[in-house]
Amino acid sequence: MFQSFEVTARPEQGPPRLQALRAELRAEGLDAFLVPRADAHQGEYVAPRDARLAWLTGFTGSAGFCAVLPEVAGVFVDGRYRTQVKAQVAGEFTPVPWPEVQLADWLRDQLPGGGVVGFDPWLHSAGQIEQLEQNLAGTGLRLRASANLVDRIWEDQPEAPMQPVRAHPLKFAGESHDSKRARLGEALHAARESAALITLPASLCWLLNIRGADIARNPVAHGFAVLRASGIVELFMAAAKLSGLEEHLGPEVRRHDPADLPDFLRGLEGPVRLEKASVPLILAEAVGERAVWGVDPCGLPKARKNPAEIAGSAEAHLRDGAALVEVLAWLDAQAPGTLSETQVVRRLEESRRRDPALRDISFDTIAGTGPNGAIMHYRVTEESDSILGDGHLLVLDSGGQYLDGTTDITRTIAIGAPEREARAAFTRVLSGMIAMSRLRWPVGLAGRDIEAVGRLPLWMAGQDFDHGLGHGVGAYLSVHEGPQRLSKTSHVALEPGMILSNEPGYYREGAFGIRIENLLVVEQAPALPGGDDHRAMLCWRTLSYAPIDRRLILPEALDPAALDWLNRYHAQVAEKIGPRLSSRAKTWLDAATAEIAIKETG
Amino acid sequence: MFQSFEVTARPEQGPPRLQALRAELRAEGLDAFLVPRADAHQGEYVAPRDARLAWLTGFTGSAGFCAVLPEVAGVFVDGRYRTQVKAQVAGEFTPVPWPEVQLADWLRDQLPGGGVVGFDPWLHSAGQIEQLEQNLAGTGLRLRASANLVDRIWEDQPEAPMQPVRAHPLKFAGESHDSKRARLGEALHAARESAALITLPASLCWLLNIRGADIARNPVAHGFAVLRASGIVELFMAAAKLSGLEEHLGPEVRRHDPADLPDFLRGLEGPVRLEKASVPLILAEAVGERAVWGVDPCGLPKARKNPAEIAGSAEAHLRDGAALVEVLAWLDAQAPGTLSETQVVRRLEESRRRDPALRDISFDTIAGTGPNGAIMHYRVTEESDSILGDGHLLVLDSGGQYLDGTTDITRTIAIGAPEREARAAFTRVLSGMIAMSRLRWPVGLAGRDIEAVGRLPLWMAGQDFDHGLGHGVGAYLSVHEGPQRLSKTSHVALEPGMILSNEPGYYREGAFGIRIENLLVVEQAPALPGGDDHRAMLCWRTLSYAPIDRRLILPEALDPAALDWLNRYHAQVAEKIGPRLSSRAKTWLDAATAEIAIKETG
Repeated sequence: MFQSFEVTARPEQGPPRLQALRAELRAEGLDAFLVPRADAHQGEYVAPRDARLAWLTGFTGSAGFCAVLPEVAGVFVDGRYRTQVKAQVAGEFTPVPWPEVQLADWLRDQLPGGGVVGFDPWLHSAGQIEQLEQNLAGTGLRLRASANLVDRIWEDQPEAPMQPVRAHPLKFAGESHDSKRARLGEALHAARESAALITLPASLCWLLNIRGADIARNPVAHGFAVLRASGIVELFMAAAKLSGLEEHLGPEVRRHDPADLPDFLRGLEGPVRLEKASVPLILAEAVGERAVWGVDPCGLPKARKNPAEIAGSAEAHLRDGAALVEVLAWLDAQAPGTLSETQVVRRLEESRRRDPALRDISFDTIAGTGPNGAIMHYRVTEESDSILGDGHLLVLDSGGQYLDGTTDITRTIAIGAPEREARAAFTRVLSGMIAMSRLRWPVGLAGRDIEAVGRLPLWMAGQDFDHGLGHGVGAYLSVHEGPQRLSKTSHVALEPGMILSNEPGYYREGAFGIRIENLLVVEQAPALPGGDDHRAMLCWRTLSYAPIDRRLILPEALDPAALDWLNRYHAQVAEKIGPRLSSRAKTWLDAATAEIAIKETG
Repeated sequence: MFQSFEVTARPEQGPPRLQALRAELRAEGLDAFLVPRADAHQGEYVAPRDARLAWLTGFTGSAGFCAVLPEVAGVFVDGRYRTQVKAQVAGEFTPVPWPEVQLADWLRDQLPGGGVVGFDPWLHSAGQIEQLEQNLAGTGLRLRASANLVDRIWEDQPEAPMQPVRAHPLKFAGESHDSKRARLGEALHAARESAALITLPASLCWLLNIRGADIARNPVAHGFAVLRASGIVELFMAAAKLSGLEEHLGPEVRRHDPADLPDFLRGLEGPVRLEKASVPLILAEAVGERAVWGVDPCGLPKARKNPAEIAGSAEAHLRDGAALVEVLAWLDAQAPGTLSETQVVRRLEESRRRDPALRDISFDTIAGTGPNGAIMHYRVTEESDSILGDGHLLVLDSGGQYLDGTTDITRTIAIGAPEREARAAFTRVLSGMIAMSRLRWPVGLAGRDIEAVGRLPLWMAGQDFDHGLGHGVGAYLSVHEGPQRLSKTSHVALEPGMILSNEPGYYREGAFGIRIENLLVVEQAPALPGGDDHRAMLCWRTLSYAPIDRRLILPEALDPAALDWLNRYHAQVAEKIGPRLSSRAKTWLDAATAEIAIKETG
């Protein structure tokens, strides 16, 4: 069922495919064609049918695109994938550092005489194309929507996924889809919009309390929907997926064939709300002048989890924590130099699979030991599989999709006796992680406004890490969910009920990696004596419970409040997780969560 | 010369003026007229002629506007001015909390049947009117540019200011205006723009290395300019102000009458860069289709101070610090209950005036004792003048405009023996101020991304303050300078050479206020052993030197690194400021900057 360690990149397959694509380029009279990683739903994971970028280039990262020209093919990847792309693509492809190099500037350099750049209008959002058009102004380059040239040359391209959809029970969803449709419809009405187009599968699934299995790791079904101000939903999804769901969906959810969507939109009376950043250009053009740019109406309501969703997530986290602790206890009993990364991944999956509520892992487990830990989005393969050696740090980042919640947790584990420098960095990362966990802040702030708190100890030592401090997480939905985020790109105010990760890290290339991650839920902060009584503040409640490796902590480098937090957290881990463990693991956990005295030194 | 303590608000003058304005409203066939605080240059200070809002309503705050309707007149003010506005306006005016209540929503509520809203197109930016039009869509309300109705009824309205302009010497400016014009013109050329319109006086003065005296506190001259891509500047400023400057300005700066600007813009070939947020609507309409929305080309170059500007500012700060310390020493020798706020303000001005390079104070000194300290933008008047009583905290926020630099410094001073609660809050404010002063951060972050560091100790105690942590400061220019800021509204990356204030505070209404402020300049951070060698980081250099009141510090509530910073800072204050003092003040300073041992307790 689960994670594969197969090496999926076959650099040698790229060049003949590139050659075939260039023939199509000439036949279409195009000077370039864009091959994005995204599908029509702009998600993080794509179905095998939509893995065009990987099929063409070999590059399997979760973001990026290729611009194919007659003489050059640029593979644009961000900072996370600079090393990976070099290993995965053949020499015929040119890695381009993105967003430092912008596509428009690169195209202008490559095609100084101008030309026509083709793209598939299902795979690019209206916002992307608008921005690209602006950036290309005055260059002599213009854009032209075309058929997807990759699909033309991909002979054994898989079919679109067609997995059955299931109703998500009310006890986990916490609100009926009648209620959701009605209140979101009312909001459209109040905004004087007649309807909103929903193209993001997680939004669709949240709105209708359904879950699917069309893509890996995310329990979503592919489809589109139009939510009317009346609360009625027009659902564009293959009938085969929806068998047996008539009663759940009821008469106010009307099914249509997906192929009918553009015509339906052309006939829909406006104003129709579209989200510029995610709506496929072809659908935006079908709405045309009746479009009102706004945000996906499900985005914030989905992000603000209700009490049932929070309770489910909390419960899933306890079972998930127990599954993880069983593995940590086992791992600790093995001598350095005896285990490999894939063995750890398999053992962890087996442990999670014992839970009947598990439906999938929430992403491919990252198990990076020693230098592999410094690769932020490392996915172990048969080729890269490495032995956990004495003195290594093991970064273990994993999660599960349970019926009652989505988990995502990272622990960094000492293998043998790591060096003091790594322990000092670990302690800084931990300091930031604890400072964020302890934080109270005034209502109205976005993730961007508080992210510094989790980075500060690293900054003061001249260090930092090149990913966000945290991301939103769904309730048995996407493990990466917007719009809530702890990062520079987040401008949405944090609100009670939002679940986010708190995952500072540190990565020393070629040496070691560190990341510590808990999921947290935003709550209203209780009043403090002496605090401002007129000022509403927020705080976090921690959802994840698993011990933090005491052997990697320099206690004298933690301030007393942080050490106190850690000791209390460990006491809660022992209390909440202990009763769920085998006796062997419980014994291990009691030692792993023992109080750290301030006088200990490293 | 300097600060007046006159009560300028005369609430009783408002109603007859309002009545006269309503007659004009009827005559024009308008249903509303907008009276903003701003002049055509959107600055913080306005000339007496442009103080229309204060003349009409009595409200003298630095931001806000009045919407005059036949039956109601709303005075829109932000959180800083909620108390002040109630004291300054007559009952015929209705204070409106802004931006919580938006003008468009308020107008819709007041004029449910729709109507015509008049405004002076010189006093509103293109961006403001665009936003307002969007917000009014569908309400039946529409906007109409008109003559300024306040000017029609204001019989003794002062003339426009006509103060002589002076050349700003190269030794302080650090770069000739030839060089500035040439490099900014090249940037326009590279952006394929033929010219940029400059409407902000500080930009104009920075660009041409001139200073004026058209408004209080800011050494700027009113005028407009068009910077051509060739580097030539078309300067729209009254000839009378520019007498004797022919040689300084040279042949590439061509003078025009200000009244000719709209016609000039109509004839100017495009594309012409305009800043939507600041360009008066009437000028944007004169440019019309040739407009390219962008930022004032002087904004960032002006913000990045060059070495001469930084050296000048640092030197001005040392003299300013000595002037302040003389007053602090004097103040400390007076018994509680014997001095008033205005006496402190006068004494401080006298002390600063001894410096021949002083040209003005940089804003009206804030001297708020006891409960007055909790009024964030308190300006003492003859009526409000209060005695510095035993147990008070005195907030003293002041600065000078020197030929070589602009200063802005706040100290909070114990009068007698304040309560422990106030000292605990002072220590939290100080902790945040020190944490920001000590900060290192990766390049690319904006003020918004690091502001939390200065607020954290307050947040953790359930406290906060309702102003930004800091603002940009000019080099013998505006004491509030954008685009660099330490606040939620700042999205511009901090860069070496930018000067900002670092001024956390705490305000307990009716009880006390606290603010501690130094100016800092951004520098490249030196590498640290063990730090990331590939990661460029920034840090601050402190410009302000004056002691922080040791009697208000609970040393046990400062972490050891903060206490170490404070002791080092005080040692530098003694070293840099001591030699510039009278012997009496020097003796006081030595005691005021003595090392604080960690064992002391409050």
